[in-house]
Amino acid sequence: MTSQSIKRLILGRPLKSEEAEGEKMPMWKALPILSSDALSSVAYGTEMILLELATVGAFAFSFSIPIALAIILLIAILIVSYRQVIDAYPQGGGAYMVAKENLGMMWGRLAGVSLLIDYTLTVAVSISAGVMAITSAYHAAVPYVVPIALLFTWFMVWMNLRGTSESGNVFAFPTYLFIFCMLVLVGKGLFDWLTGTGHTTHSVSVPTGLPTGLTWFVLLKAFSSGCSAVTGVEAISNAVPHFRRPAEKNAKRTMLTLGILLAVIFGGVTILSQAYNIHPDPTGTKSVLSMVAEAAFGRGGFYYVIQLATTAILTLAANTSFNGFPILSSIMAQDKNMPRMFSNRGDRLAFNYGIITLGILASILLIVFRGKTDALIPLYAIGVFLSFTMAQVGLVLKWCRDKSEGWQRKAIINGVGAFVTLCVVIIFCITKFKEGAWIVIIITPLLVFLLTRISKHYDNVAKQLKVELNEPIPAVETVVIIPVAGIHKVVLSTIAYAKALSPYVVAFYVAFSPEEAKKMEERWKQWNPGVRLVVVVSRYRTLIRPLIEFIGRAERHYGKEKRITVLLPEFITHKFWHRLLHNQSAFRIRTLLLNRKDVVVSTVPFHLND
Amino acid sequence: MTSQSIKRLILGRPLKSEEAEGEKMPMWKALPILSSDALSSVAYGTEMILLELATVGAFAFSFSIPIALAIILLIAILIVSYRQVIDAYPQGGGAYMVAKENLGMMWGRLAGVSLLIDYTLTVAVSISAGVMAITSAYHAAVPYVVPIALLFTWFMVWMNLRGTSESGNVFAFPTYLFIFCMLVLVGKGLFDWLTGTGHTTHSVSVPTGLPTGLTWFVLLKAFSSGCSAVTGVEAISNAVPHFRRPAEKNAKRTMLTLGILLAVIFGGVTILSQAYNIHPDPTGTKSVLSMVAEAAFGRGGFYYVIQLATTAILTLAANTSFNGFPILSSIMAQDKNMPRMFSNRGDRLAFNYGIITLGILASILLIVFRGKTDALIPLYAIGVFLSFTMAQVGLVLKWCRDKSEGWQRKAIINGVGAFVTLCVVIIFCITKFKEGAWIVIIITPLLVFLLTRISKHYDNVAKQLKVELNEPIPAVETVVIIPVAGIHKVVLSTIAYAKALSPYVVAFYVAFSPEEAKKMEERWKQWNPGVRLVVVVSRYRTLIRPLIEFIGRAERHYGKEKRITVLLPEFITHKFWHRLLHNQSAFRIRTLLLNRKDVVVSTVPFHLND
Repeated sequence: MTSQSIKRLILGRPLKSEEAEGEKMPMWKALPILSSDALSSVAYGTEMILLELATVGAFAFSFSIPIALAIILLIAILIVSYRQVIDAYPQGGGAYMVAKENLGMMWGRLAGVSLLIDYTLTVAVSISAGVMAITSAYHAAVPYVVPIALLFTWFMVWMNLRGTSESGNVFAFPTYLFIFCMLVLVGKGLFDWLTGTGHTTHSVSVPTGLPTGLTWFVLLKAFSSGCSAVTGVEAISNAVPHFRRPAEKNAKRTMLTLGILLAVIFGGVTILSQAYNIHPDPTGTKSVLSMVAEAAFGRGGFYYVIQLATTAILTLAANTSFNGFPILSSIMAQDKNMPRMFSNRGDRLAFNYGIITLGILASILLIVFRGKTDALIPLYAIGVFLSFTMAQVGLVLKWCRDKSEGWQRKAIINGVGAFVTLCVVIIFCITKFKEGAWIVIIITPLLVFLLTRISKHYDNVAKQLKVELNEPIPAVETVVIIPVAGIHKVVLSTIAYAKALSPYVVAFYVAFSPEEAKKMEERWKQWNPGVRLVVVVSRYRTLIRPLIEFIGRAERHYGKEKRITVLLPEFITHKFWHRLLHNQSAFRIRTLLLNRKDVVVSTVPFHLND
Repeated sequence: MTSQSIKRLILGRPLKSEEAEGEKMPMWKALPILSSDALSSVAYGTEMILLELATVGAFAFSFSIPIALAIILLIAILIVSYRQVIDAYPQGGGAYMVAKENLGMMWGRLAGVSLLIDYTLTVAVSISAGVMAITSAYHAAVPYVVPIALLFTWFMVWMNLRGTSESGNVFAFPTYLFIFCMLVLVGKGLFDWLTGTGHTTHSVSVPTGLPTGLTWFVLLKAFSSGCSAVTGVEAISNAVPHFRRPAEKNAKRTMLTLGILLAVIFGGVTILSQAYNIHPDPTGTKSVLSMVAEAAFGRGGFYYVIQLATTAILTLAANTSFNGFPILSSIMAQDKNMPRMFSNRGDRLAFNYGIITLGILASILLIVFRGKTDALIPLYAIGVFLSFTMAQVGLVLKWCRDKSEGWQRKAIINGVGAFVTLCVVIIFCITKFKEGAWIVIIITPLLVFLLTRISKHYDNVAKQLKVELNEPIPAVETVVIIPVAGIHKVVLSTIAYAKALSPYVVAFYVAFSPEEAKKMEERWKQWNPGVRLVVVVSRYRTLIRPLIEFIGRAERHYGKEKRITVLLPEFITHKFWHRLLHNQSAFRIRTLLLNRKDVVVSTVPFHLND
């Protein structure tokens, strides 16, 4: 079995470019693929607010309703704003594209880096959340947290290497199950509350003034914590090219659907947490969502279905990143901000480099933090909100420049959004600085710097490669050097090939003793292949040093007019493991020669029968 | 700073072959390098015997003296026998060489594999023993057992890559300190015992009959456990070529010195354990050696020096393997039983492949067993004793064939040794089967099989490569194919080079759409480099598939008389990290072409300025 056929078996047959359209997502697939991150955030949004408010006392819980309303308003602004992003930039790229076009490439890189960091953190956080759900059920699995998390990560890598559409099929069911559960939960709860039935013991009140002990700072902190419910909404705008035609229309409709779902579920759960008088558990053993579900349905079958669906969506949130990261990095690579290979599509039309890079980065995070990534949760909202801000500032500038129909209204919406999201970023940086925000604050500019260097390098290369169409082709001759290790079939066939290339062919042999040198010279004379043999006695036990010295001498002798070609044999074996038994020195010589000398290195294959 | 200058900094300047003699060891260096394994075994030999006897009761302890005497007799037999090995096989290789020459290649492989497994286990066991000594002193280090053990392992790899002699300098001091400590301990203890002073409360008695409750099986088991004190004596016979001249004489003298030291220290400690009435601690917190030292000197300064020296020698025992493994594998590679590169010397005249392979294998063991390698101790005596048996059986056959002077005496000595060591192997396999001996019993034949396959492969290759000196060089022509990605400087210089090689040159371009194809064709016509351009529109997004198809067509067209050469450009960059931004596709294409097609792949370097 060849490595190619193994690849087929694992990844499936290669897809043609025309099949890319078939790989594109209809809305019903796009929603679960692109919004599991946003939807999963709902699972802990309310909890984050209540936990912050609990620091001053349970009396503050009633403020969760206005805070939730503010966040829903923010969601609405973001949805409207990002629908405008889709219109303006249907080729995808989201905040990166908007920032790049309207604020300049540096801001684009900043937005791109923020999002890439966020995607990576999302994978690590959501997978370890999923694994934690397993370990709390099966305590025996605790020592294997990291291996299980890595297994999940690479399962996702594998699914995504097979292609976007197929992974959508697998991921659709749990997402829809979660949506269904949440809607049933909110519906049942609201019905109970409005009719005064069930366990809705508490009256839901909206506060009118600020009670003593509660400061605006606490409220803002609670608001920014609750904003984690908003992360993930940008994924759709980045992935417009992945939608089935009409892509923009479908993407905008998906975005609207997501916005409504988020508002209903998040708002509903927050109201219910008041109606059922839920107090958050600071030890983290019981989530607010599970307490709401228990209050509504009791510890029955449906309660467990909700728990299962929540676990599943938390894990699947990682998949949103597996979609977003490769697309964004491919767009950035096309702009020469990332290594070129990130824009290459694999056989299955997926961006293999991006998918595998994300898998590796997330694995490193999981290993370094030993699967305990709770600490990462506060970090990963900074990137999203920074990119939100930049996208909206960019759009404000765009509207002011374009002055298209209704530009004032659009600019005001985006301006408000930019201001609010910037506030969230600032509040995050201040309140979460010690909890790890400093890591993001350090790494982000470093990566932006790296991307700038990459971009500069590619620009330099492009300049060096430029050719005038009237530039003549220079006449060149070549001298062929064949390092030989003795007299055998490989040398014979290499000499035969060398004679076809050039009249200047020389064989080069390194002897470790003068006796050996003499013996080789005599045998060569006897064989007489019509090629001069140069024998060098080396005091070092390696071949490479004398060879490089010899090439240096040849270079000085022939000067610039003759290019030197070194022929190295390579054994081609049938069985994979046989390859390990050969070619080690040839490989080393090839690498060193290419790096040290301006010579052409030709690999002449010699096929072994067994 | 280039990768070469970094290598120099880490490993030191390259050494010439003549310097190999300077790298060879005088006796005072050879003893610590080659015998730290054997000497360290003394640290737990007595303990192993007492622990086995303790299973029936303290009354059996008096049997430790006759058992120790039997083991000292075994040491004597082995020393005499291995001095005969050195005489007969001064080129090194020990049991492998003896078994190969006298019993056949298969038995040689078995002996070689046994020793290689043993070397690997020794590294893992002795390094984790050393680390355990650290963690029992500094409890805070407990979570870092594996990282510390890996650090030690790769420190040893590094020292050994620098060359044998330098590592000897570092390792000599602790070994001599240990020898000094042991001799002082035994001297002081025996003096106390004979004069009846100190804490020697117990009379040392030698039993005359077998008391009830004690079976021969228990005695044999205790004997075989105590035999772990013998492991390591073979290292000297394997490393004869590493000795300074006269190598054989020096090796034999070193062996004798080691034998005397082992007998004195092991016998002395065993007698003292009786004299001081030491009972082994089954929990393993206190070693018998440390209790003897405490009884002799109290918990004073010298006691701690002894503890320190013991820890050091346990760790350094690993270094014996770092000497033995590379030499043995290089000898086996010269016999084509191991991959060829194991016989290549590096710049510093060390066998880099062997050293690094041992480092990797030991690291895997340390990681898999999380540094708790106590379980491995019983395993690693099997290999040694199996190789002892084979070496001695081989020598018996040799003496019987040679019939040289005194052959009967020599044959009897070796025959007795073979019988005793075989008994030890059998007892080990039976009594330690469940404790892990089964792993060795499974892995050993698998490795022997693998080595046989490697050897067969190399034999086949040698047959295929054989050439008659009157065989004529066939006349060949070549067709050059240049895959191009556009029109730029690299294409220009590659075409210039291609024209020097052959009049048959064709450029090959893959377009992803018909429009792109047309555009390229027109630009090419405009440029007119004097080379035909073939454009293919590909439905796949990869270059490689159409290229392979095109080569297939060319092969069918030209048949056997023309060899196909594919020219691939490679960007050579100044900075290391820039390299990651280029050449990814060229590398993949090169690998695939060489494996799938019978074409020459030439790498034409293009040097970038930045």
